[in-house]
Amino acid sequence: MNVEYILPNEIEHRSFEIITAELEALGITIPLDQAPITKRVIHTSADFDYAKTMCYSNGAIDLAKELIKSGAHIVTDTNMALAGINKKKLASYGGQVHCFMADEAVAIEAKQRQVTRATVSMERAAALNMPVIFAIGNAPTALISLHEMMEAGVFTPEFVIGVPVGFVNVEAAKELFLNSTVPYIINKGRKGGSNIAAAIVNAILYSI
Amino acid sequence: MNVEYILPNEIEHRSFEIITAELEALGITIPLDQAPITKRVIHTSADFDYAKTMCYSNGAIDLAKELIKSGAHIVTDTNMALAGINKKKLASYGGQVHCFMADEAVAIEAKQRQVTRATVSMERAAALNMPVIFAIGNAPTALISLHEMMEAGVFTPEFVIGVPVGFVNVEAAKELFLNSTVPYIINKGRKGGSNIAAAIVNAILYSI
Repeated sequence: MNVEYILPNEIEHRSFEIITAELEALGITIPLDQAPITKRVIHTSADFDYAKTMCYSNGAIDLAKELIKSGAHIVTDTNMALAGINKKKLASYGGQVHCFMADEAVAIEAKQRQVTRATVSMERAAALNMPVIFAIGNAPTALISLHEMMEAGVFTPEFVIGVPVGFVNVEAAKELFLNSTVPYIINKGRKGGSNIAAAIVNAILYSI
Repeated sequence: MNVEYILPNEIEHRSFEIITAELEALGITIPLDQAPITKRVIHTSADFDYAKTMCYSNGAIDLAKELIKSGAHIVTDTNMALAGINKKKLASYGGQVHCFMADEAVAIEAKQRQVTRATVSMERAAALNMPVIFAIGNAPTALISLHEMMEAGVFTPEFVIGVPVGFVNVEAAKELFLNSTVPYIINKGRKGGSNIAAAIVNAILYSI
C-alpha cells in the first residue's frame, strides 16, 4: 500500500467520502440530520459499529444546536474531551467547556464520601445553574449521578451526550437515559470515549 | 440491566478481569509482556479488534520502559493525547509531553509550505535533540514525515507508537514503520486515536 499524495485540507473531505461510500456498501442508511454526527464519530474511531448503535432522541439534534446557539455551556467528565472540543467555535456562541474532574477539591470530597470524582463533578455542574449540555465520555457514574439527581427531583439536565466507554455499569447507565425524558445522543452498548464525546460536540458545532 | 454497586477503586480492576475473561472466551492469547498494554487499549475503547491488530517490534516494551526510566520525553500529535497521558507519572522519571500542533507558528509555516501541521510538528520534535518516544494518535502525515526524515538521513526516531486513525494514508503510514528498523508499537489497520495513544503510554508508565 502506497502513500497517496493529497493536500492537507482535502484529507477530511476525502475521509467523509470514503465513510459515505462504505456505509452505502454496508446497506446502512443514516437519517440526514444524524449523518454529520454519526459519520464524524466513525471518522474519529474508524469503527463502523457506531452506525448501528448511535441513538438520538426525537428532535435531539435541533435542540442541541438551539442550546449552543443560545449560549449553553458544556460540561464533560474528561480533560481529553475538553481538549478535543472546538472551544473557539463554542465561544463564538457564548459557551464554554467545563471539566471538574481534575479539581483537587473534587478528588478530596470524592474520597471522603467514597463516590467517584464523576459524581462530585456532576453535582458541581448542577450547581452552575445555567443551561448545560453534558458530554459524558468516560464515567458511567457521571450518568448514574445525573439520573439520581433527577430521581431526587433536585436537578434535570437539559441535554445529555452519553458515550461513556467500558465494562462496568456502562450499558446500564446509558439505559437509564434511553428510558428517560431527557433529550439525548447516546451510543448504546459498551463503546464510546472522550474522543467520541468530543467528536459529537464538534459535529453539532460544525453543522450549526 | 441494573446498575451494579461497586467501589470506585474497584471499577478498573473489575474491568480488566472482564477483558481477560472475554479474551479467553474468544480464544485469544496475548503474550505476557504485551497484555497490560493491549488490555488497556481494549479498556479505553471497548473494542476487542485491537487484540488482533496491535503489533510490537521485538523487545519494544522493555525498550520503551528503559527510555522512560532514563528520562525520555514524549511527543504527540494531538492535544487530546497530551491531556490523557499521565504527566505526573512521566515527570517522576524526568520526562515531559510535548505537542506542537496548536502552536501558531506551526500553523503558519504549514500553510505556507502546503504541508500538514503534523509535518512541521515532527520537524520541531526532531530539533529537540533529545531521546523522544513519538506517540502518534491522529495524523498519518506525522508518521510519513518522520519516515521522510529517516530516508533523508536527517533524523531517526528512537521509538514510535503509531496509532493514527482514519481512512486516508493511515494504513500506508503504519506500514512504513512496520517495515522499518525503528522500535515500534503500532496498531495495524485504520483504527487508533489519541485515546489509544494515551492508553499505550500510560500502560507503559504503569508497568514500569
